[in-house]
Amino acid sequence: MMKIKLAICQHKVVNDKKKNLIKAKKMITQATNKNAELVILPEMFNCPYDNKYFSKFAEEIPGKTSRFLAKIAKQQKIHLIGGSIPELVITPKGENKLYNTSLIFGPSGKLLAKYRKLHLFDVDLNNGVTFIESDTLDYGQQITVIETNKINFGVAICYDLRFPELIRLIADKGAEIIILPGAFNTVSGPAHWETLITARAIDNQVFIAGASPARNLKAEYHAYGHSMILDPWGRKLKEADSKERVIVQEIDLTKIEKVRKELPLLKHRRSDIYNLNEL
Amino acid sequence: MMKIKLAICQHKVVNDKKKNLIKAKKMITQATNKNAELVILPEMFNCPYDNKYFSKFAEEIPGKTSRFLAKIAKQQKIHLIGGSIPELVITPKGENKLYNTSLIFGPSGKLLAKYRKLHLFDVDLNNGVTFIESDTLDYGQQITVIETNKINFGVAICYDLRFPELIRLIADKGAEIIILPGAFNTVSGPAHWETLITARAIDNQVFIAGASPARNLKAEYHAYGHSMILDPWGRKLKEADSKERVIVQEIDLTKIEKVRKELPLLKHRRSDIYNLNEL
Repeated sequence: MMKIKLAICQHKVVNDKKKNLIKAKKMITQATNKNAELVILPEMFNCPYDNKYFSKFAEEIPGKTSRFLAKIAKQQKIHLIGGSIPELVITPKGENKLYNTSLIFGPSGKLLAKYRKLHLFDVDLNNGVTFIESDTLDYGQQITVIETNKINFGVAICYDLRFPELIRLIADKGAEIIILPGAFNTVSGPAHWETLITARAIDNQVFIAGASPARNLKAEYHAYGHSMILDPWGRKLKEADSKERVIVQEIDLTKIEKVRKELPLLKHRRSDIYNLNEL
Repeated sequence: MMKIKLAICQHKVVNDKKKNLIKAKKMITQATNKNAELVILPEMFNCPYDNKYFSKFAEEIPGKTSRFLAKIAKQQKIHLIGGSIPELVITPKGENKLYNTSLIFGPSGKLLAKYRKLHLFDVDLNNGVTFIESDTLDYGQQITVIETNKINFGVAICYDLRFPELIRLIADKGAEIIILPGAFNTVSGPAHWETLITARAIDNQVFIAGASPARNLKAEYHAYGHSMILDPWGRKLKEADSKERVIVQEIDLTKIEKVRKELPLLKHRRSDIYNLNEL
């Protein structure tokens, strides 16, 4: 059985954690009603995407949101990629650290992995978009690929997409699909989101699922939306607009081998000329 | 003076070397009549793109085509990137080797560099496109960036575009523009050419000039065309259709610093987590 049904919940995040969780549950249920087996939430699905909210909304793990996700994953017997949330870690020295963290649950409700965003988004665009994520967040330290008996997938978050090295290393670790919760904005989104997602699929000959929040014009940060699922040839299988949507798509994992056989890109790398390593 | 005028000659290559050189001269003159200072020819501009022609059309360097290019570069006082040609090298043991080689000339007619294609195109697409370049050609061994007193540029050829590692290393060596003579075909072209060129510009925050031959339906191999020039934000500045065209575009090199200041992607790489090296 090499087919699997994915869903992306393009969730319209509001400034109320409880409402965000209720909405997430509703959208996940819409996805499982269509038999989705792997369900993806967007970046910061429980918290508005703005530095001033991260510490207020942050939780230790386990905590309210992680218990909530574990319960739904178990109830619905799905793999659940909890987009990301602000995670609070209190160090042995008593310092508070915050991470942009994706929680990945299996169908038994077990937390299979935590991925903390490796690249933080510090940008000062001329047209008014300024965002210095590293003012409040700390850097993840670990590339993450999850192996299940059905599918192997890697997780990267938003700005991580801009680093071809990371996506390549995730593919090299055996990911068949790269799950990318990401909140590009209305400047970088139209300019770069689709091109970069598509190029990563083409280069690495993997599926990619980019999961954006819906655009909320009442929020400080306007997400681009346009969640999409692409195949290993870079064909777009499904795309949302900017509104709240659940998109569901069955993917055929045998396509990966087919594309890699026709065009053996990964074997054609010149490992005698250059070398990309995880340190 | 941080502006420079580029031209791409989207040359319709035919099965006659002399005709190809005459046409190249005509197109280069069209470009210099519009004050182009750096002129780019496409991949295999003097030879039909098919394995059976490479050895017949191949030349040692210096040879007919290289002398021809040197003379025009000097006459017109331009940097001339001679797309690529099949290069013959006779080894000390008397073996014939063929390379897909780009010859880069300065305004004095001096050969500044030779770049030999690093990645060879071996592909067997389901829809009938089969091309095993490594049946006849040998592999280049050297990443190439040329520094002039006006601009630094790197050269990569066609299939090289599919390897983000190479393009990244060219940018790391200081290229402000990546010159990419390339003959994608009518399958891979519509599917991948623009996406990959654009992603490489965005990722590396450099200009890119992709120079294709025009489509020649009488030839065995149908090139995609669509030569294009993009800026470091991934904006398309100019694009040809599939016909024989000269496209000319002035570029402002200060854009590179501007984009890199707003979005310091290259500084945000996690050099503590991964490492990409030239060997």
